[in-house]
Amino acid sequence: MKTRAAVAFEPKKPLEIVDLDLEGPKAGEVLIELKATGICHTDAYTLDGLDSEGLFPSILGHEGCGIVREVGPGVTTLKPDDHVIPLYTPECRECKSCLNPKTNLCTAIRSTQGQGLMPDGTSRFSYKGERIYHYMGCSTFSNYTVMPEIAVAKIRKDAPFETTCYVGCGVTTGVGAVTNTAKVEPGSTVVVFGLGGIGLNVIQGAKMVGASQIVGVDLNPEKAEWGRKFGMTDFVNPKDVDNLVAHLVALTDGGADYSFDCTGNTEVMRQALECCHRGWGESIVIGVAEAGKEISTRPFQLVTGRVWKGTAFGGARGRTDVPTIVDWYMSGQIQIDPMITHRFALDEINKAFDLMHQGQSIRSVVVY
Amino acid sequence: MKTRAAVAFEPKKPLEIVDLDLEGPKAGEVLIELKATGICHTDAYTLDGLDSEGLFPSILGHEGCGIVREVGPGVTTLKPDDHVIPLYTPECRECKSCLNPKTNLCTAIRSTQGQGLMPDGTSRFSYKGERIYHYMGCSTFSNYTVMPEIAVAKIRKDAPFETTCYVGCGVTTGVGAVTNTAKVEPGSTVVVFGLGGIGLNVIQGAKMVGASQIVGVDLNPEKAEWGRKFGMTDFVNPKDVDNLVAHLVALTDGGADYSFDCTGNTEVMRQALECCHRGWGESIVIGVAEAGKEISTRPFQLVTGRVWKGTAFGGARGRTDVPTIVDWYMSGQIQIDPMITHRFALDEINKAFDLMHQGQSIRSVVVY
Repeated sequence: MKTRAAVAFEPKKPLEIVDLDLEGPKAGEVLIELKATGICHTDAYTLDGLDSEGLFPSILGHEGCGIVREVGPGVTTLKPDDHVIPLYTPECRECKSCLNPKTNLCTAIRSTQGQGLMPDGTSRFSYKGERIYHYMGCSTFSNYTVMPEIAVAKIRKDAPFETTCYVGCGVTTGVGAVTNTAKVEPGSTVVVFGLGGIGLNVIQGAKMVGASQIVGVDLNPEKAEWGRKFGMTDFVNPKDVDNLVAHLVALTDGGADYSFDCTGNTEVMRQALECCHRGWGESIVIGVAEAGKEISTRPFQLVTGRVWKGTAFGGARGRTDVPTIVDWYMSGQIQIDPMITHRFALDEINKAFDLMHQGQSIRSVVVY
Repeated sequence: MKTRAAVAFEPKKPLEIVDLDLEGPKAGEVLIELKATGICHTDAYTLDGLDSEGLFPSILGHEGCGIVREVGPGVTTLKPDDHVIPLYTPECRECKSCLNPKTNLCTAIRSTQGQGLMPDGTSRFSYKGERIYHYMGCSTFSNYTVMPEIAVAKIRKDAPFETTCYVGCGVTTGVGAVTNTAKVEPGSTVVVFGLGGIGLNVIQGAKMVGASQIVGVDLNPEKAEWGRKFGMTDFVNPKDVDNLVAHLVALTDGGADYSFDCTGNTEVMRQALECCHRGWGESIVIGVAEAGKEISTRPFQLVTGRVWKGTAFGGARGRTDVPTIVDWYMSGQIQIDPMITHRFALDEINKAFDLMHQGQSIRSVVVY
């Protein structure tokens, strides 16, 4: 079949909108018609050539929502007309990782996914006979895509596509970092570095679980209003204080119970650890750092009780946890609508990248 | 009263054995007759002038065991003839830290302890009218010492002093890192870096809680036999392998569930983190690093699920947990006797430092 898609033919070039060939689902796979997709910094990171493992030509996009249109042989948990979110972190429920309750990092299809291929080692996309790579196992910048059954979360049918797609990455990453990775308790003091699309979701996750003080840190003063919309209680602009860590420790009466880095800046990651409370403060790295950058601190910070952790996809097991997060959205426990600041047709997708680079959007969505 | 003690008059000089003056216990304090004390690397670190906060002249020693001889006004939990272990980490059961179940780092007397003084801001020791500082709130290199009630653990009377004193630091630090900080589960895979007095206690703690694989890492091949005595299942000498981290990951089928640094070397701390299993491996820093040294890693290590922690005094709340560890020793769940390799009279204490520097002792003990 044919599908219309935005193709990344080369790094650092705008995406090109073309009609290309898509093979149908093989055994254990499903065909999904995407109805909406978010545009995330990770897509831009790859398109800008910063990801040393980025493959071209490929179809980017990993934050989608759509409808199952066809299932391959052996598929038992999905059927046509199911509403779904594609998962870049699958959940096979059989590998060593899925069977360990401490992690969500399923390894069932990791090697082929990293190679831009389906689990059988081939691509379903081609253009004029040339292979086009899959991306993060999703490729949601295509109107239709093929996914392994284990990488698809089935969700309720009343959730609107053009907002719910954000659960496919940003919402789950931020909210899940609070609920799954940090397991923030009611009454906690939380500090969030970077109030972009991830940081705002950390804030609303912290509010949902009953954190008492939620401090947002951002260099952009306009982010203060954004933070307050989602539950932030205090805003700190690092430009306004002499010693950021000392200021945060004082503001939180000894330090944060939990801090979250949503910037990807390794110096900020250090500040996030060091503003934690002696004895028990935990810092969670969410942001993806530039290749080659390292985090550092004095080991004394750890010996005196601080804990340094990280999270990917908010520690969520996609097939299990994503439907629950959609429920939280539909019941009003978390908000998504105010974060979707821009909507585009697929033909306009490059504008979404421009807005993101200019810092003018929280989240842009392509509606098919 | 008079007490015989080994005094550190200056850094980098041998201790001098003298009779000095000791004031009796004030309100909330007790007088303890030490019956034995271990000599720990931390004492040597301070004596060697490496601790920028080290004070002189002082009475070192923090790993003692003895008998309460007198109690000051208001003391309710101790009485003369109680057998006790002095605690360099007190447990007041009233401060913010003691009331948080996540930490053992009581802050009740932290500032005066750091200044080498009793909680009222004075010293009980003097020599020819000159003030001698307390050390780590213990000063067990004196036949008698005065301690705050909140920094004394009462233990059973049948525990022998000259082995049980080791619970005052090394045993609790190593075993407690396993049971309190890491909370190692049965069946776990554990890697221990540095098989000195702390590392061997980590090994026997891991064995006690049912770890299935316990890998010891040390540059000294003679430590292999020591490790096996306490439950080590595999020994790796870094000199014998090309890539230590890759070797350990292969040996442990994907990485350690828990790793422990007992070396104080910041490069080793990094290896300890990076040999942990993707998704859930936790590395615990126990060793004290040189002043100014920092730990580093790629944040990717954390984002893919590894956790970096530290521990002080094995995460133990001294008054509560130390008596339990003494019980484990007396019931044979852990061993101490084979680790006490040398015994000295107080007059010979400088020999114990020489042996430690030469790496010839696991633990030397002074028996009063």
